[in-house]
Amino acid sequence: MRRMAYEFKLVRRVEFSETDMAGIVHYSNFFRYMEAAEHAFFRSLGFSVVTRQVEPPVGWPRVHASCDYKRPLRFEDEFEVHLLVTAKKSKSLTYEFRFRKLNGKEPVEVARGALTVVCVTQRRGQMKAATIPRAIAEKIQVAPETKSE
Amino acid sequence: MRRMAYEFKLVRRVEFSETDMAGIVHYSNFFRYMEAAEHAFFRSLGFSVVTRQVEPPVGWPRVHASCDYKRPLRFEDEFEVHLLVTAKKSKSLTYEFRFRKLNGKEPVEVARGALTVVCVTQRRGQMKAATIPRAIAEKIQVAPETKSE
Amino acid sequence: MRRMAYEFKLVRRVEFSETDMAGIVHYSNFFRYMEAAEHAFFRSLGFSVVTRQVEPPVGWPRVHASCDYKRPLRFEDEFEVHLLVTAKKSKSLTYEFRFRKLNGKEPVEVARGALTVVCVTQRRGQMKAATIPRAIAEKIQVAPETKSE
Amino acid sequence: MRRMAYEFKLVRRVEFSETDMAGIVHYSNFFRYMEAAEHAFFRSLGFSVVTRQVEPPVGWPRVHASCDYKRPLRFEDEFEVHLLVTAKKSKSLTYEFRFRKLNGKEPVEVARGALTVVCVTQRRGQMKAATIPRAIAEKIQVAPETKSE
Repeated sequence: MRRMAYEFKLVRRVEFSETDMAGIVHYSNFFRYMEAAEHAFFRSLGFSVVTRQVEPPVGWPRVHASCDYKRPLRFEDEFEVHLLVTAKKSKSLTYEFRFRKLNGKEPVEVARGALTVVCVTQRRGQMKAATIPRAIAEKIQVAPETKSE
Repeated sequence: MRRMAYEFKLVRRVEFSETDMAGIVHYSNFFRYMEAAEHAFFRSLGFSVVTRQVEPPVGWPRVHASCDYKRPLRFEDEFEVHLLVTAKKSKSLTYEFRFRKLNGKEPVEVARGALTVVCVTQRRGQMKAATIPRAIAEKIQVAPETKSE
Repeated sequence: MRRMAYEFKLVRRVEFSETDMAGIVHYSNFFRYMEAAEHAFFRSLGFSVVTRQVEPPVGWPRVHASCDYKRPLRFEDEFEVHLLVTAKKSKSLTYEFRFRKLNGKEPVEVARGALTVVCVTQRRGQMKAATIPRAIAEKIQVAPETKSE
Repeated sequence: MRRMAYEFKLVRRVEFSETDMAGIVHYSNFFRYMEAAEHAFFRSLGFSVVTRQVEPPVGWPRVHASCDYKRPLRFEDEFEVHLLVTAKKSKSLTYEFRFRKLNGKEPVEVARGALTVVCVTQRRGQMKAATIPRAIAEKIQVAPETKSE
């Protein structure tokens, strides 16, 4: 029996170069964190996002990205990026990301993001939407409904 | 009579360090472009976003950011970031950003983003939402309804 | 008669996302500024660094980069990156970069950097050092000896 | 008896957003990697680089940074940043950094960098060079002479 996955948790620490003059993580970096979690999720399934393990090779350009910021993250804060698969269509995936700061008494949600990516193949430099390869699709499922915390 | 502003256009060219291995602008950089347009908009009004021209000084942390991507931007593409003020509340501003690639025969929209920022003052390292200073508020107005192009 | 060039001046303004929590431009960004000046220098000669105007196409990976920092640059500072060609070999170019802050009474040098780039062609994903194409080489010369200011 | 340290090894994996359109890690990111290793080295000594554990608080602006690039790093490559203290003066520290790619048969050096940082205190927004606080200085020593590998 095959195990399917719908979530992944990445833990990291804020680096100096990710902060800005306001003393907090620059808001654009949350989108880099989301992508890092997405790619680690793929690795946890045995794939790389720039996989040549499927033929033809596929890419995953973003069509939508968003983030709601509740509290700042600061230098050396330890935090978790909790990825959840919220939609799975034949040619696209949607993720939700919950950012939780870990270095207080208990985890505190600091931001929540979303990302929709489309599976594409490249033909002569042109990207074309493609059905998610079965080897990948059969390993990913939508997360059971989750109540807001 | 005072002139109020509701838009700003910033033109720039994609730099090499803004691209990723897919050969296109990394999606997180569109959020840097939005911010660059926002700050240039403020300068066009005679203010800096880290202004000490109002007392007490205010900051503008982001509470929401989003972007929809339609076409990629590539190295050395010339593009316009068209900022429009879409909401103005007592303590927050919302902007829409239309990204248009300029180096083709005619401008082509490649992405559309949004940003909501809240006016805050700092007290002992804590940010607190504050009414937008009158000197700033009286220079900004909401853009007249615009049809999607 | 052909005009050769040995320098280029790029003027830009520090962006918010280029600062760090120390309130100054993060030191790694000076290397992005150097590259931006290098690429604008190439454009001033009628080339793109990712040119397909020469056959076979060449790339310019960096083999050495350095920077000495004298004074900080801060948000919205206007500054000049003055590129000078300091060495030109058959397969490589070396540049010096002088960073001058422009928004004081008179320009002040804030940093000085250097970059050595090698001309390469790609063969099956492997980079191989190559003679600088004549069309490019004949447009670039070494700057006349310059005294330190 | 007190234990002094002269080195630190940081292992990380190349992220997608660290690559550029040449398909390799953008050269400016090696300077971010150096800083990440430097800060992890400080944490290994029980300090944060933005420490308030010493009075007055000190900062560590960079006065020199350099890097020699031998081989590229690519997406998802696992690599080690090996920091070595190569000079310790009353007000400054110099580090060497050896970058080794780990995901081949055996580690391969891909780059070598250096960083000189000066200890400063802040007074009214002005940085002033200061003697390295004893609590920090007594934990750091210069690495025994190391032969090039």
